[in-house]
Amino acid sequence: MSQATELLSIVAEDIKHVEEKMRSGISDQYTDLQSVVDYLVGAGGKRLRPALTLMAANFYPVDKEKSYALAASVELLHTATLVHDDLIDNSLFRRGMPTLNVSWTPGATILTGDFLFARSAQLTAQTNNVRIVNTFSETLMIIVGGELNQLFNDGHGNVPSEEQYHHRIYAKTASLFAAGAETGGVLCNAPETEVRALRDYGYYLGMAFQVIDDILDFKGDEDHIGKPVANDLRQGIATLPVMLFNKKEPNHPTILKAVRREKVSDEEILAVVDKIRGSGCVEASMEEARRFAQQAQAALENLPDNPYRQSMHGIADYTVTRDI
Amino acid sequence: MSQATELLSIVAEDIKHVEEKMRSGISDQYTDLQSVVDYLVGAGGKRLRPALTLMAANFYPVDKEKSYALAASVELLHTATLVHDDLIDNSLFRRGMPTLNVSWTPGATILTGDFLFARSAQLTAQTNNVRIVNTFSETLMIIVGGELNQLFNDGHGNVPSEEQYHHRIYAKTASLFAAGAETGGVLCNAPETEVRALRDYGYYLGMAFQVIDDILDFKGDEDHIGKPVANDLRQGIATLPVMLFNKKEPNHPTILKAVRREKVSDEEILAVVDKIRGSGCVEASMEEARRFAQQAQAALENLPDNPYRQSMHGIADYTVTRDI
Repeated sequence: MSQATELLSIVAEDIKHVEEKMRSGISDQYTDLQSVVDYLVGAGGKRLRPALTLMAANFYPVDKEKSYALAASVELLHTATLVHDDLIDNSLFRRGMPTLNVSWTPGATILTGDFLFARSAQLTAQTNNVRIVNTFSETLMIIVGGELNQLFNDGHGNVPSEEQYHHRIYAKTASLFAAGAETGGVLCNAPETEVRALRDYGYYLGMAFQVIDDILDFKGDEDHIGKPVANDLRQGIATLPVMLFNKKEPNHPTILKAVRREKVSDEEILAVVDKIRGSGCVEASMEEARRFAQQAQAALENLPDNPYRQSMHGIADYTVTRDI
Repeated sequence: MSQATELLSIVAEDIKHVEEKMRSGISDQYTDLQSVVDYLVGAGGKRLRPALTLMAANFYPVDKEKSYALAASVELLHTATLVHDDLIDNSLFRRGMPTLNVSWTPGATILTGDFLFARSAQLTAQTNNVRIVNTFSETLMIIVGGELNQLFNDGHGNVPSEEQYHHRIYAKTASLFAAGAETGGVLCNAPETEVRALRDYGYYLGMAFQVIDDILDFKGDEDHIGKPVANDLRQGIATLPVMLFNKKEPNHPTILKAVRREKVSDEEILAVVDKIRGSGCVEASMEEARRFAQQAQAALENLPDNPYRQSMHGIADYTVTRDI
């Protein structure tokens, strides 16, 4: 049993119900849509987001069916954004499996994403809790707003400030981690201070998670199958290792060209990646991820100790050591 | 004052608040997103959907702010689906103005639609009513499911049955009309029989509206600026006039080619359009639209008589006479 599987084992049975909910709710007449949803659900990853949501929802006695609906809505919201992102970025693989847009028309891919958004909203409504619905619609606005902001700022041509970077990875990742953990607490009627602690945990864990993801982009890790090393930088997106390197050695011509969305050769990218790797900036980024993970663990102190809290503590450790 | 303006005048002041809500809720930092939302709101049509929602919401004393949020969520949901549809169909104009996809990348267009879905969900949640949220998420599933069904059935190659056609125009149009009128009634705490009557009204009005839209496609009406006559048939979609014609004269080679998504020349289309126009099938389709409008008016009988009901009665008449 891998470390991740062990940490998530406390909700492993629940996750089966969640996946069932993710596949359900499609009218019998739509057999093609059913098979594509089955494919997307089958291609899922570790289910970290719904697992955290379930853990948060189990701090107090909870309506199990509602907790499955909530966790499924989190993962379907995530899946819907990935379906649209892969189309927009023309990505060919996701977790080692071909993306929808490879074999499908853009139209069918757009509509499948839309369908998943709708189904996610419907599952959220099944919690019968307007606060939860509100949190999710706001989160989706933050996620999409962040992506639009990135598109609109195409070619503005600067390495982002720390604040801009934090906002970007909050929108991209931490916002949904935070929403999942928070709404789990809301669903089981946790006291408000604990709901806040759960949200903080999700936020900091999500920040750590995304920093690690950005670091992995510099490792050419197999998690990023189908993507070349420094894929973000090739697309003009400067992440933490680049930002830290830019402080040490400002105005490196390759980085400037990249963030200005000018053409950069493979050789130039590989050369600057080597320089960044040798600069200690990847390690310094790891330090930042570890700090976020520690802040996530600190937030847990405000929650009653139980096996769920212990798993969440372990997940924070795992997040900053995974695959590295 | 046009007939439409007069019929909608009873909610004209409210609609201004609705448009304000449609434009609001965007973070100050997203100036580009704000201008595109302003453009989309400014390019709006007669606001029939939010107007009906407001009328339904005013049968009993209602929280005005919530009624604006509800009506805005209806119109933004509609707008979001149009943004994605225009991209999928490569449409260049909508209501005489260039579509978003003409000047924008597909990515920005997809994300703008997603943002509008999220904002619509947020406004729905502002009603603080889970039943309303649920109705809208289900309606979005029906709308998108209908579009996907149409895409998947590409090339199945049959003229649809009446049942298939009814399901298609329900998904495309009547479902949102029905949802808007129903949730208006829910918001003002109308008795359940009246909520049902409002839903029925919306449903039948939406059915009439879409049949007329399909008829206008045969008129080369200026409402369809930028679209050639029989645009649906050119795309392989057989609507009511074609279906009725197909009963009279089965297996017309141009119609068969069109629904099989085979290449059809402009001459062939114009020739079959002439035949359909001369066959009485457009008039027979008008009869069907009028029957739907009468059913909408019959549903109103189950509601208390008031100026809103009178307007709704007039709108049903107007719908089947507009621009014809």
